[in-house]
Amino acid sequence: MIPRYSRPEMVSIWEPQTRFKIWFEIEAHACDALAEIGVIPKESAKNIWEKAGNVTFNVDRIDEIERVTKHDVIAFLTHLGEFIGPDSRFVHQGMTSSDVLDTCLNVQLTRAADILLADIDGLLAAIERRAFEHKLTPCIGRSHGIHAEPVTFGLKMAEAHAEFSRAKKRLLAAREEVATCAISGAVGTFANIDPRVEEHVAAKMGLKPEPVSTQVIPRDRHAMFFATLGVIASSVERLAIEIRHLQRTEVLEAEEFFSEGQKGSSAMPHKRNPVLTENLTGLARLVRGMALPAMENVALWHERDISHSSVERMIGPDATVTLDFALARLTGVIDKLLVYPNNMQKNLDLLGGLVHSQRVLLALTQKGASREDAYRFVQRNAMPVWRGEGDFLALLKKDPDVSKLMTDAELEEKFDLGYHLKHVDTIFRRVFGRA
Amino acid sequence: MIPRYSRPEMVSIWEPQTRFKIWFEIEAHACDALAEIGVIPKESAKNIWEKAGNVTFNVDRIDEIERVTKHDVIAFLTHLGEFIGPDSRFVHQGMTSSDVLDTCLNVQLTRAADILLADIDGLLAAIERRAFEHKLTPCIGRSHGIHAEPVTFGLKMAEAHAEFSRAKKRLLAAREEVATCAISGAVGTFANIDPRVEEHVAAKMGLKPEPVSTQVIPRDRHAMFFATLGVIASSVERLAIEIRHLQRTEVLEAEEFFSEGQKGSSAMPHKRNPVLTENLTGLARLVRGMALPAMENVALWHERDISHSSVERMIGPDATVTLDFALARLTGVIDKLLVYPNNMQKNLDLLGGLVHSQRVLLALTQKGASREDAYRFVQRNAMPVWRGEGDFLALLKKDPDVSKLMTDAELEEKFDLGYHLKHVDTIFRRVFGRA
Amino acid sequence: MIPRYSRPEMVSIWEPQTRFKIWFEIEAHACDALAEIGVIPKESAKNIWEKAGNVTFNVDRIDEIERVTKHDVIAFLTHLGEFIGPDSRFVHQGMTSSDVLDTCLNVQLTRAADILLADIDGLLAAIERRAFEHKLTPCIGRSHGIHAEPVTFGLKMAEAHAEFSRAKKRLLAAREEVATCAISGAVGTFANIDPRVEEHVAAKMGLKPEPVSTQVIPRDRHAMFFATLGVIASSVERLAIEIRHLQRTEVLEAEEFFSEGQKGSSAMPHKRNPVLTENLTGLARLVRGMALPAMENVALWHERDISHSSVERMIGPDATVTLDFALARLTGVIDKLLVYPNNMQKNLDLLGGLVHSQRVLLALTQKGASREDAYRFVQRNAMPVWRGEGDFLALLKKDPDVSKLMTDAELEEKFDLGYHLKHVDTIFRRVFGRA
Amino acid sequence: MIPRYSRPEMVSIWEPQTRFKIWFEIEAHACDALAEIGVIPKESAKNIWEKAGNVTFNVDRIDEIERVTKHDVIAFLTHLGEFIGPDSRFVHQGMTSSDVLDTCLNVQLTRAADILLADIDGLLAAIERRAFEHKLTPCIGRSHGIHAEPVTFGLKMAEAHAEFSRAKKRLLAAREEVATCAISGAVGTFANIDPRVEEHVAAKMGLKPEPVSTQVIPRDRHAMFFATLGVIASSVERLAIEIRHLQRTEVLEAEEFFSEGQKGSSAMPHKRNPVLTENLTGLARLVRGMALPAMENVALWHERDISHSSVERMIGPDATVTLDFALARLTGVIDKLLVYPNNMQKNLDLLGGLVHSQRVLLALTQKGASREDAYRFVQRNAMPVWRGEGDFLALLKKDPDVSKLMTDAELEEKFDLGYHLKHVDTIFRRVFGRA
Repeated sequence: MIPRYSRPEMVSIWEPQTRFKIWFEIEAHACDALAEIGVIPKESAKNIWEKAGNVTFNVDRIDEIERVTKHDVIAFLTHLGEFIGPDSRFVHQGMTSSDVLDTCLNVQLTRAADILLADIDGLLAAIERRAFEHKLTPCIGRSHGIHAEPVTFGLKMAEAHAEFSRAKKRLLAAREEVATCAISGAVGTFANIDPRVEEHVAAKMGLKPEPVSTQVIPRDRHAMFFATLGVIASSVERLAIEIRHLQRTEVLEAEEFFSEGQKGSSAMPHKRNPVLTENLTGLARLVRGMALPAMENVALWHERDISHSSVERMIGPDATVTLDFALARLTGVIDKLLVYPNNMQKNLDLLGGLVHSQRVLLALTQKGASREDAYRFVQRNAMPVWRGEGDFLALLKKDPDVSKLMTDAELEEKFDLGYHLKHVDTIFRRVFGRA
Repeated sequence: MIPRYSRPEMVSIWEPQTRFKIWFEIEAHACDALAEIGVIPKESAKNIWEKAGNVTFNVDRIDEIERVTKHDVIAFLTHLGEFIGPDSRFVHQGMTSSDVLDTCLNVQLTRAADILLADIDGLLAAIERRAFEHKLTPCIGRSHGIHAEPVTFGLKMAEAHAEFSRAKKRLLAAREEVATCAISGAVGTFANIDPRVEEHVAAKMGLKPEPVSTQVIPRDRHAMFFATLGVIASSVERLAIEIRHLQRTEVLEAEEFFSEGQKGSSAMPHKRNPVLTENLTGLARLVRGMALPAMENVALWHERDISHSSVERMIGPDATVTLDFALARLTGVIDKLLVYPNNMQKNLDLLGGLVHSQRVLLALTQKGASREDAYRFVQRNAMPVWRGEGDFLALLKKDPDVSKLMTDAELEEKFDLGYHLKHVDTIFRRVFGRA
Repeated sequence: MIPRYSRPEMVSIWEPQTRFKIWFEIEAHACDALAEIGVIPKESAKNIWEKAGNVTFNVDRIDEIERVTKHDVIAFLTHLGEFIGPDSRFVHQGMTSSDVLDTCLNVQLTRAADILLADIDGLLAAIERRAFEHKLTPCIGRSHGIHAEPVTFGLKMAEAHAEFSRAKKRLLAAREEVATCAISGAVGTFANIDPRVEEHVAAKMGLKPEPVSTQVIPRDRHAMFFATLGVIASSVERLAIEIRHLQRTEVLEAEEFFSEGQKGSSAMPHKRNPVLTENLTGLARLVRGMALPAMENVALWHERDISHSSVERMIGPDATVTLDFALARLTGVIDKLLVYPNNMQKNLDLLGGLVHSQRVLLALTQKGASREDAYRFVQRNAMPVWRGEGDFLALLKKDPDVSKLMTDAELEEKFDLGYHLKHVDTIFRRVFGRA
Repeated sequence: MIPRYSRPEMVSIWEPQTRFKIWFEIEAHACDALAEIGVIPKESAKNIWEKAGNVTFNVDRIDEIERVTKHDVIAFLTHLGEFIGPDSRFVHQGMTSSDVLDTCLNVQLTRAADILLADIDGLLAAIERRAFEHKLTPCIGRSHGIHAEPVTFGLKMAEAHAEFSRAKKRLLAAREEVATCAISGAVGTFANIDPRVEEHVAAKMGLKPEPVSTQVIPRDRHAMFFATLGVIASSVERLAIEIRHLQRTEVLEAEEFFSEGQKGSSAMPHKRNPVLTENLTGLARLVRGMALPAMENVALWHERDISHSSVERMIGPDATVTLDFALARLTGVIDKLLVYPNNMQKNLDLLGGLVHSQRVLLALTQKGASREDAYRFVQRNAMPVWRGEGDFLALLKKDPDVSKLMTDAELEEKFDLGYHLKHVDTIFRRVFGRA
């Protein structure tokens, strides 16, 4: 997590003050439940909220205590006691540090997921707007980087929309994976704390009780969460690379917006580089790479070890902050993307009609040629055009094997661009529910 | 995929004959739909099924043709033509290779998912049986590898059951991710093939139409699939490592079943090694490592490139075959696991009562000691016991600060094992719906 | 490891027969050393070579024995005994399975490394030939996919040559990492086997004695080996992606060789796709992904566990076979690459002289303009050219701020292509030792 | 990079002030060379050092400029100009941003490598000290977590020493990989900057000239660097896991040092947990996970794209800072490790002599039994001992098949511990050059 690739709202989730606030809420809600079932005095539970419910914790002071105790939750509880006074002895009754730490982490991850979900919604809106704007803007479709057949720029956006709709669905599932709360005490047996406390805290913190915890909340949940972020980051990369390709000098069908003061290169002032999408490519590599350590975190020893902690201290903030930044940056790129329909048309015309070869091939078979013959007829006329030696339609008209099967008019009909766009509405309806 | 770690049912999904069979079905169903909408003669569609519906394809012959054409689908279609005769010109009309390849891959992945789901069901059944068998078999719970407080072996199984129930849910979602069919032609525009063909083939092959494909089915779906397998493999590793720990010479609370002819070591004949679970640890590393290449596959260029193909040819079989084998092996391990309650009790008694320290700590605070004082009283008596110098209960009884607050009888009550097991039923009901 | 991406020489290293042959050699050399130091009869050692030195082992028979013993080395030794007779009791004296398995693996990996080193030599030769062929073939250099300044195709090859020279150096180091032999007995103490046996076997098998083994050869060596393959695979990817870019329809500066019978697409017969380099991109992902499991293999428990074994059974063959295939394929691609100097020139001319902007910028500062002013003058003339509105040289001549500092002749001199190529020889001498 | 797992010296390498200082030095040295070859006035080059050689750069001011220019090097140069005045127009002549950025990164990485090398030296010293301290402290060697045969604690340390000696050698190679300098201008052709400038800057910054750069220094070098850190981190994990195992309650052969104020658990005050080595396990996962993004960085497009930058901004500091912290922490753990020879002896005795089974097996074969018979005799006496039903030596003496071959005295000799330690000195001499 570095400032350059961070946005404040997501960063704030991971700040010490936020963490201590969540710790306090977990402890105080637990006290309420303990009071309700008669383990501690109701007055004390009330007092805890009153004395510490609105304080700003002194992060430096807590760090100072931790340097002695070498235990972060004990340090916090000691500091909390400074606000609460004698009633502090009722705080954390029967609980273990993991109850606080793991429940807090899941609160943070669900909040992070909520921001990411909003990010995706914003991205989907931008994509949808550009999709309809360019629903029928024709451009060449490419397989293997080679011109294939016509598509539209709107279809490219539709694909992205469908992909990020899936991303959203996956993220909702990932959020649900980590939206659990454990207040089950040492080794998770509830020996020293009633399960009703967990139920109360879970409800108050917007979580569900973890069915069975072993002091810790099981880490397969978190592995799934971070793996999902990795897949979403890979979709960010896909759209980013599409734009990088479209912005290539020789292609130039679209460009990232270029602001006034911006300088493309310290040496070559004419350059307008797709630096935002290149940056997104790198950020995707980072987020993806964090899935593996998260998966290695699953196999903790026996009822728990703490090897997961250092990993999560780093990838918890890093993966969510980086993906948040990436989604927001991608939204801006799509929103302001400069699209050049004229250049799209120029590229469509580049191959002298070769992109219609398949239609001719099909027509020939329908006229009775075998698939192998039709393929041969088409290919022998396509190859010279590919080398820049002639026009595809003209050559076909002159080919006696072709002429035997198709008239010139029939051949001409096969070169109509509109033919390729007749199902764009079908696809739009599938993706957007409207066309 | 190597024979040693493979099971035949899963392997057969990935055999050439299976693949060609699926290819044929896709093509033949497409012909039915094309005939239904009048593009090709109904008689021809019928003839295709009749001539080739029950044949065994000649894999060597197809390979031979591919060596010339350097194109696998064309090679197959050529071979298919040898069965079908002139009607073969109606096969593959308006389709592109990816329609066949991608739909086939998704058929294979959904079939693989079905086997894996059955594997998980089998594993869950074995875990559940052992969980109830040992619901109240006490053993020490360990955090950081250090004795903490009592749990039961049934609780360990309950945790595993909850974890693999989540694995099942994730796998169902992953299966749904890849259960799509694309028959959309070159660059996915349906220019040369009616969308109704896709709908028909999808229904027949047990899939849903891909809302928008770009010649290929988008690879974020597959990335999610393989990432999910990686997470499940990590859960396999977790349970495997638990067993490896329990089988350590000094712990010996459980052992993998040891068959009669088996030799543990070429040098040390007394050895009984947890080789199955060690093997599972390695297999988990392999499956997990395949998630990354799958994520890198997402960002194909423009409407498609074929870089994903070599990755999928390897990880498609490898990840599913390896995970299938691992789940089955783990099921066998759990099913036949030798559990040693006597050793569990011996280990429980190892620390001279220290595992009850928290209960004493809590009791002291409830009697009016501050948390800090109680912690100090307990720790100063615990440390000598830890060093093997005395019995915890005896020392506590002699500590004047403790005696001031608790009678001997009150102290003794805190050393009751049953106290820790009182919520086992609660947890079992959460996990299994019964106790 | 799948046939499609395999070459026989590398595959043969990993075949059971090869493995058993190496096992035999290790055992027989050990017997020689044991005989030399008087532990077993010299006649027996000689007899072992004579009876089994030239046999073909029966792989099925060994598998059959293993199904009973569940131990591969014991199964092999039993089978070996069938050839040798009573003297077989002297085989494997004081040794442990790992002595055989680990030393064998390292023999296989060093042989694999030797093939890979030869592959790299072949690739370097192909690259060098093409580099000199096109040393002065000018083409546009691109940063961010955007035209920057002129380079030559030979320089692109020189970069690749330097990169694969580094790959070779790394591979030599990786080979040295795994070229060790351990014959140290159970837990590696040499309690039952004299260290002189290890020295003898190491020398005979072309390895060095492992300074300290713990029954197993430490796996950091293998992690380094596979990590190195991952880095080399990434260099394969880099060159593959360069070619994919150059083959794009709009760029078309180079093409993979296209054989006569080859079909680019089942639907679009004109297509010539960079399928080999796309394939290489995927293979790179696979090899790279194997570095992680190899690193996870390092932390074996205590003196050894066997979790590394399943990983190595898979990635040992897979990583070496795949990289061997990839290097060979890349060599073929480079060797036969169709290079189009005319298209390179066409692309160089595409931007109406903008690629010379930096030279103008520098000249302006040398004439006394501040860097900021010079940048501004250049950029305001570059932007219209970028939009296709005018010629860069013409606009500069008309700019009064520019005219104040530079004459038309001075401006024209800045548009000379040769200027950019004056240090090509310098670079070639650095890379190839000649120019 | 988070404060908790960071040490100031390594952190300072990555601070903005350090970076700007290095940028300045690169620029100023380049000016010296440019002056030397007559491109800019010598007086100006001198002036640049005088005006800015000792300044503290205003990081906030540079950030402020970058927010407008969106280009970090231009922002720095603008700020630099504020110190230098008119001569600033001679700075960065013919250079491109990457010349500064990439050379700076490599200076930072070599400095980081130097710290890591010193870390490893410190670790090796600690390991060596403990190795000789416990050269002959016997403990049980374990394979598969199961007691095998005796080793010594010193041998465990010797293995770690050999492993980190390899780590040092690898790190030296990795340092050499990234110790290069590129001052080659746009697209790396030296068109606007003489190669002698590069040579001068390289020499002054302690680097070698990059033989061929393409505006950027090729990223295979950095991939190798980070992959090497990943392998070293895996060795950290190995030693950490060894200690975690030894500290298990049932094993307790060693313990991390436990300071006075430290609290092991908020709930269980007696607990002494291996939290440092658990933490190291997690840190290893993190460093290892960064190897993949670094490898993905290799395949930049054409002469360069900037996707590597965001990755390096994160993993550059994160990997080096984390590994530095981990190595230092591990050194402290080893240095202060509490070693319990009495417990080691207790564990050695745990199996009633079974650990000597192999010696008996060998002796039986040497007395004439076939390997299969000997194995059977030993195993049938070992199994009851394993179940706790008897003493191994006593049972062997009573076995008639054994008695036929060995006298009681001969059997007793096989139970001598010293037998296993006779080659410890040999191994120590191999590892440490002394014994």
